[in-house]
Amino acid sequence: MSLSTQPYKGARDFYPDDKRLQKYMFGVMRRVVESFGYQEYDAPIIEPLELYLSKSSEEIVAEQTYSFMDRGGRQVTIRPEMTPTVSRMVAARRQELSYPLRLYSIPNVWRYERPQKGRLREHWQLNVDLFGVADLLAEHEEILVADSILKAFGAKHDDYSIRINSRKLVDAILRDHAGMDDERLQKIVRFVDHRSKMPHDEFREGLAQIVSEAKARELIKIFSAKSFDQLPEKYQKHPSAQNLLALQKLLAASGISNTLEDISLMRGFDYYTDIIFEVFDEHPDNNRSMFGGGRYDGLVAAFGVESVPTIGFAMGDVTLQNFLEGHDLLPKLPTEIDAVVVMVGDVYGAAQKVLAAWRTNGLNLAVDNSGRKLDACIKSAVKSGVLHVLFIGEQELASGKYKLKNLESAKELELDQEEVVKILKTE
Amino acid sequence: MSLSTQPYKGARDFYPDDKRLQKYMFGVMRRVVESFGYQEYDAPIIEPLELYLSKSSEEIVAEQTYSFMDRGGRQVTIRPEMTPTVSRMVAARRQELSYPLRLYSIPNVWRYERPQKGRLREHWQLNVDLFGVADLLAEHEEILVADSILKAFGAKHDDYSIRINSRKLVDAILRDHAGMDDERLQKIVRFVDHRSKMPHDEFREGLAQIVSEAKARELIKIFSAKSFDQLPEKYQKHPSAQNLLALQKLLAASGISNTLEDISLMRGFDYYTDIIFEVFDEHPDNNRSMFGGGRYDGLVAAFGVESVPTIGFAMGDVTLQNFLEGHDLLPKLPTEIDAVVVMVGDVYGAAQKVLAAWRTNGLNLAVDNSGRKLDACIKSAVKSGVLHVLFIGEQELASGKYKLKNLESAKELELDQEEVVKILKTE
Repeated sequence: MSLSTQPYKGARDFYPDDKRLQKYMFGVMRRVVESFGYQEYDAPIIEPLELYLSKSSEEIVAEQTYSFMDRGGRQVTIRPEMTPTVSRMVAARRQELSYPLRLYSIPNVWRYERPQKGRLREHWQLNVDLFGVADLLAEHEEILVADSILKAFGAKHDDYSIRINSRKLVDAILRDHAGMDDERLQKIVRFVDHRSKMPHDEFREGLAQIVSEAKARELIKIFSAKSFDQLPEKYQKHPSAQNLLALQKLLAASGISNTLEDISLMRGFDYYTDIIFEVFDEHPDNNRSMFGGGRYDGLVAAFGVESVPTIGFAMGDVTLQNFLEGHDLLPKLPTEIDAVVVMVGDVYGAAQKVLAAWRTNGLNLAVDNSGRKLDACIKSAVKSGVLHVLFIGEQELASGKYKLKNLESAKELELDQEEVVKILKTE
Repeated sequence: MSLSTQPYKGARDFYPDDKRLQKYMFGVMRRVVESFGYQEYDAPIIEPLELYLSKSSEEIVAEQTYSFMDRGGRQVTIRPEMTPTVSRMVAARRQELSYPLRLYSIPNVWRYERPQKGRLREHWQLNVDLFGVADLLAEHEEILVADSILKAFGAKHDDYSIRINSRKLVDAILRDHAGMDDERLQKIVRFVDHRSKMPHDEFREGLAQIVSEAKARELIKIFSAKSFDQLPEKYQKHPSAQNLLALQKLLAASGISNTLEDISLMRGFDYYTDIIFEVFDEHPDNNRSMFGGGRYDGLVAAFGVESVPTIGFAMGDVTLQNFLEGHDLLPKLPTEIDAVVVMVGDVYGAAQKVLAAWRTNGLNLAVDNSGRKLDACIKSAVKSGVLHVLFIGEQELASGKYKLKNLESAKELELDQEEVVKILKTE
């Protein structure tokens, strides 16, 4: 039996066309986050499993990690997310680093889930984290960065919405209705987090099993508020609710008017401490959460160093690509190869000098060194999607005049060495 | 007990300075290989373990893989190398792809080894593979690409040598001296591959245990040949030896004169079928193999499709960085942040418009939104290594004149919006 040619289930092979698209998306991300002063970092894809225990999401650690024991008996896992890692790195150099510290990365992360639209087992994730800013200006910047990335892809404010909430506010509401039992509170948070995935009846019944019937009814009423001014007055006056309103004003001053208050927004991770946000695709056929983030002030201190106020978000490549496709925002990206070079006669050695000169001048030239006949070479060039064929024979090398054929227009030009560069760089 | 802040043993955290260096190295690699028409691909870091069984290196599979069973009962491994993966991908689209097919990737790969200089458990590896060219022109191109990359980093031919050999030639020699037993032959190949890591006596004794004392003496004499013209005449006439001489001539015509014939060069992988090459650092303090490659015509066909002639090499980031450091070829890379923006007074909201305009114009601006006093902000900017501080207050916003301070020269300029862009893009 021969080996399978398929990639691991729920993960993707990237052929050049796919990789080009990924590089385009990552390029836009990099350009925008760097314009805000974020600097790229990276880390090993393997981390000790304990890094995620109680610091991440119970569901992820218990059901979705790629964990195993290495040959030295260490319990490790392929990272399911990047936040614990970047917190570890900041903690390691807590004193040497200067603040505000802006870090970004585009790691691949792994989760064992049922593969489905927008959700794969391996995906890449832009992580944007700001360390050292305790107040709202940090929230403003993170949401502005997220918004700027979507706009840099050509998205309009109608295409998406930004929902905001506060874990502190949720905490206050839950403690009023479900008591001081931390475990029960976390249970509710996780349950509400999955609300959109279940029918309303199931949600009501499930909630009633965690608290009482009566409390469940009260909570459902609260979680159904369309905006904060529909909340009971005491919660409207809560400092975190006030903060959220101030944040919305600040964002509106930056031209970001598509924020929505959403008291039922939870985010899956345990480490969030206050304001959280999530960006939703507003396309009627694909109305779903795309990505989000929030404040997680406690995580760096989990490594035994002084606490650092922190906020961050992560944007996955799969959901982003779905969004860009859905809104017709992906450009057609041509191959990086400027021309296929076809040798006429035995000039391979003699042509090396001019090829080297062209390459140094920035041209990407793929030599057809297959030894096939001219026709076969040109057929291959057409199949490869390259726009030009450049012919080199003894005559061309002697005269310094080269024949360049545009495969789309079938036009042929006779060009000297410099003209070849000029034409190929512009066409 | 708090969590460890250290990365997994034998793997690296990349803080922004480290990541910048990696991006520089990858950028040079990408530029050169793309100038030869190679296109980037990628694949999941997890592959089925069987992909490496008998197709890679026995040592790697048995002792160095990060293998485990996933939650679905699949025996998988984190890739220890990329060659089986790219072969799988080509096999999957054998018919749709056009040839010559040029593919490159810069994946991270994992091997459980004792970490030491130039060898870590996780490293990145440029993989450059050419599919569909059966003759020497493919070998010429691969070595030319490798050589062009080193030159693009500023290396001179004295800094490194390129050793070449043929597995077919080695095979012929071994069959003459050790018989037709394939297993014994592979044992010798692997043993000779480790020759540089053991004293000569140990090598002689080890070899004598695989073949006889007398045969071992003969083989050692052959493996000690400094060039092919020191080999017994029948091996000098072997087609592969002739091919290697032709290759050297072709390379010399491309200005590559630092190739050395090395009959003891083996390369660790089982899949090589003929010509192999390895690039050595010639620095007296670090004279070691850096990277290499060779022809592996049989691997694509292992997936049950028609065979494709193939050659490839892989260049690791750790050994490359050691090489560049050893020869003083690494540039000093400044931060990507053009300026730290310090707000004077309560102008955060009002300043957003001009900040957005500057960022759209390509400036990378990190706002100090920490709320600290001016002095503390400037101190942080100095610590972060950024060259400029840009001050924005009410007066600046009203007049459109901004104060830009160069932290190195302590020079201050008053500039309008466009002049800020001009200065920051040039300084």
